[in-house]
Amino acid sequence: MTSCIFCGILSGETPASFVYRDERVAAFMDIQPITLGHLLVVPTAHGAHLADIDEEIASDLMRCAYRLSAAVRGAGVPCEGVNLFLADGAAAMQDVFHVHLHVIPRFGGDGFGLVLPSDYPRRPTRDELDGVAAQIRAALDGTRT
Amino acid sequence: MTSCIFCGILSGETPASFVYRDERVAAFMDIQPITLGHLLVVPTAHGAHLADIDEEIASDLMRCAYRLSAAVRGAGVPCEGVNLFLADGAAAMQDVFHVHLHVIPRFGGDGFGLVLPSDYPRRPTRDELDGVAAQIRAALDGTRT
Repeated sequence: MTSCIFCGILSGETPASFVYRDERVAAFMDIQPITLGHLLVVPTAHGAHLADIDEEIASDLMRCAYRLSAAVRGAGVPCEGVNLFLADGAAAMQDVFHVHLHVIPRFGGDGFGLVLPSDYPRRPTRDELDGVAAQIRAALDGTRT
Repeated sequence: MTSCIFCGILSGETPASFVYRDERVAAFMDIQPITLGHLLVVPTAHGAHLADIDEEIASDLMRCAYRLSAAVRGAGVPCEGVNLFLADGAAAMQDVFHVHLHVIPRFGGDGFGLVLPSDYPRRPTRDELDGVAAQIRAALDGTRT
């Protein structure tokens, strides 16, 4: 896994500024922060995509991000809010293929934001929403079997 | 809590297209989807901000989002990737003040993206990153006591 930059960080090969580490998850500073204090929370065992890690590890990432969200608010960096962001797959803007959950301190005028589709907001009918919900419920049942 | 739109949905006062519900979390279709299949995962008990919910509930939100991420990939909607997004605080673009984790199916050309600060990418020195990491670790220790 030496070709994975985050595995290199976790093994100590590549320098990083850690804020937390246990057996299952670790958190360190993003070297290209969107804002000061921008953190990445990662599983210590390599997994490229969400589907490659256990759901308990995914929930551990969130537990860690939850604590870090409180910590960055009290760390003395500009922080009036926090975004959590995870990109799963190249089409979702994933850049490093080792699962990572961003913790991004936010403040007024920080320059970060979302680009929405040109036809946003679309307002599907209730029937359309119910139809998609039924498809997702069926797929959810399928993932359980 | 009738003034909270998500509490209204959870109580059945306001219609919604649910895909999942248990005692602690629920998931339903966003009525202004960024892409078809856009879901919101919420705690069933009201909490405006992350700090208002228990960390176990936060991790339950992620466990549910993890399962839904797999489900939307198999639900027959365009989906080559998934973004998870949570906004905590108005400065972080939170719009509804009941914690919610977005699950957003993604595909090439869907028109969704991020606006980055005009000076991005900044590249702080290792000393700067170590300094901020130390501040966050200190705050993290503080939140534990």
